[in-house]
Amino acid sequence: MPLQEFHYRDSQLYCEDAALSAIAQAVGTPTYVYSASAIRENYRAYERALADVPHRIHYAVKANSSLAVLALLAAEGAGFDIVSGGELYRVLRAGGDPSTVVYSGVGKTAAELEYALEQGIGAFNCESEQELDMLREVAARIGAKPAVALRVNPNIDAKTHPYISTGLSEHKFGIGLQAAESLYGEAAKWSPLEFTGISCHIGSQIFDTSVFEEVLSQMLALAARLCASGLPIEGINLGGGLAVGYEQGQPSASIAGYCQMLSSAFAGSRFALGLEPGRSIVGQAGALLTSVLVYKQADRKIFLVVDGAMNDLLRPALYSAHHEILPVFDAGGPRLLCDVVGPVCESGDFFATGRELPACSAGDLLAVATAGAYGFVQASNYNSRPRAAEVLVDGEAFRIVRERETREDLVRGEAS
Amino acid sequence: MPLQEFHYRDSQLYCEDAALSAIAQAVGTPTYVYSASAIRENYRAYERALADVPHRIHYAVKANSSLAVLALLAAEGAGFDIVSGGELYRVLRAGGDPSTVVYSGVGKTAAELEYALEQGIGAFNCESEQELDMLREVAARIGAKPAVALRVNPNIDAKTHPYISTGLSEHKFGIGLQAAESLYGEAAKWSPLEFTGISCHIGSQIFDTSVFEEVLSQMLALAARLCASGLPIEGINLGGGLAVGYEQGQPSASIAGYCQMLSSAFAGSRFALGLEPGRSIVGQAGALLTSVLVYKQADRKIFLVVDGAMNDLLRPALYSAHHEILPVFDAGGPRLLCDVVGPVCESGDFFATGRELPACSAGDLLAVATAGAYGFVQASNYNSRPRAAEVLVDGEAFRIVRERETREDLVRGEAS
Repeated sequence: MPLQEFHYRDSQLYCEDAALSAIAQAVGTPTYVYSASAIRENYRAYERALADVPHRIHYAVKANSSLAVLALLAAEGAGFDIVSGGELYRVLRAGGDPSTVVYSGVGKTAAELEYALEQGIGAFNCESEQELDMLREVAARIGAKPAVALRVNPNIDAKTHPYISTGLSEHKFGIGLQAAESLYGEAAKWSPLEFTGISCHIGSQIFDTSVFEEVLSQMLALAARLCASGLPIEGINLGGGLAVGYEQGQPSASIAGYCQMLSSAFAGSRFALGLEPGRSIVGQAGALLTSVLVYKQADRKIFLVVDGAMNDLLRPALYSAHHEILPVFDAGGPRLLCDVVGPVCESGDFFATGRELPACSAGDLLAVATAGAYGFVQASNYNSRPRAAEVLVDGEAFRIVRERETREDLVRGEAS
Repeated sequence: MPLQEFHYRDSQLYCEDAALSAIAQAVGTPTYVYSASAIRENYRAYERALADVPHRIHYAVKANSSLAVLALLAAEGAGFDIVSGGELYRVLRAGGDPSTVVYSGVGKTAAELEYALEQGIGAFNCESEQELDMLREVAARIGAKPAVALRVNPNIDAKTHPYISTGLSEHKFGIGLQAAESLYGEAAKWSPLEFTGISCHIGSQIFDTSVFEEVLSQMLALAARLCASGLPIEGINLGGGLAVGYEQGQPSASIAGYCQMLSSAFAGSRFALGLEPGRSIVGQAGALLTSVLVYKQADRKIFLVVDGAMNDLLRPALYSAHHEILPVFDAGGPRLLCDVVGPVCESGDFFATGRELPACSAGDLLAVATAGAYGFVQASNYNSRPRAAEVLVDGEAFRIVRERETREDLVRGEAS
């Protein structure tokens, strides 16, 4: 099974102890369903495996920014990695502690920096000299002394989808190693900024964790050099990037194994470890629940047109991503080869092609698996489709954590 | 110039008679800017060229569903092509006449069909036998006699991007020619549905209009056969699909030339012509106005990080689409090769790579050209970014037709 906490009982698909059919009946479809237990479990896997070294897990809000998910992680003691003022607003609304927040991103505005300084966030991952200039100016004006890590671009190939590979010098992210080192060298010039850390992030959905070892050795060496030169470097933030399994039988990269490697490397080190995991915490903890609208036998294939679409889950169209399709009721029986597509008027609107599924008809429920990360956060109103509802399951209980949009919501703020 | 009604005066970029710098100052960035004159002009180009044959232009709402754009087209006498209940709601909110509306799409729900029947829309383009079943059931229940065209899939290669090519039998759209003809053959069985038309749509962004001639001859032959068999076929709807030029110096497919061909073919025919143009009416009439946040000299290239991003305009990431980048102030001078990227945390967030632009610094304004179609309609809140404002220009006047979203808007309907 590709999804944590999603499993069959008597031919019915459950999330934890809640039947997906009951959720569909209560809330309608399309609906995102998240497992609170799976999210906690993944977060705790990081905490457990890193118990022996000073560390902080900053959950990457961009993966799934549901207030309910953020609140759940805040209650676990998680910190947060944000990339916009909007994400900071979400963290605060969810009860997150601003001092645990690190702010990443290549295009922070002055207004966003000011907002973050006023809220007293923990640190900034700065990605350009110009950003340092802007941050210094705003910090001086309001009397703040923010902790700063430069985001170093280590020029390492993460061997993942080009859109989510971020650690090569041809990418917009970070500052080249040499350039970063000279900026650190003139730390006094950047006062009141306090250079207390270094950071990097080489990409997302990485299975081969050996690339992290390479990055880590670069970062440890850099931190040691900076300390030797007198800088008070306290932390090394390695970003996120651990992969989850999207295909049947494909295991996720091991959180425990990855953290074991990090723990060994940091044992006895003077540096605290920072991580920014997103997908590995929420990816498998979510599914998109959808209903079959039309069973369509075309000339050469069968189409199942469902009520979810690319506006709800963009990953198949944007990244050619694979998602397993799970029938919510599956009594076995013969399989048919189907394309699972949405109602949006373009051929790019598909969830899966050529999949073996039991015979389906209108009204049958399907779950698009491993949709907890980069799912709802990329949802749009394309084709004037109201966005889906979101539900959080905890044990046998479930509740709506975001209401389905209405037609009225579509035109909010518009004048004809 | 790739954009209608966008032009330079004294080194400054204008939309009609409004300086884009004035719009940015008043409304901020990122902001979509549309030219009312260009939209009217394109709509009228269709009307003029088809004046001699019975016809109706149904503007494809999915291309740009701004209430202001719809209202403007309704005032011109346009009909509308919709693909969801949400789009019908928009047309009605904008003052559109429901009797001019045709409803297309592969995944209409029973609730949407009922809403459309209650509002008395003009016709349904039906795409499967199951949809006919559902429409018949709802129509019988509420006492309606809807006009229906089957959407025929002519199995013709539109030679465009695979995501927006829709007329091959491997696509989810329409009903194969033979299957459609047998459904028409049992028209009586489908009462109270009235089979009064035939329709097709082979794709979008089509330059080679000879493929339309091929489709048209198939459709005329089919309509003639159906009439001979006693069916009261009145209209042939050829869908949309005319391309616009995205690259410097690349002309759009000619509306006049295309309609000339259609006009000749329909002269003296007993059938009325229906068209569903979208992109060719609004594509060049819009631009995304954005500000440079960061000028970043990386190891091997220059990045201009702007405040617009893939969440605002997805076409470069989703379709590898080209958009021209126009400096809002351009005094000439030497050009630099730049990548224009957004602040979103993935490498897929780019507007253009390797473009020659004048030296830019933070605060400078750029316009992403030809963004009037499939721009704002695909916008999301990815990275918790509030969606852009939309502005309509008419002469020297401009007004906000959709307010910029706020942080509070991001969490609407959510509970933590």
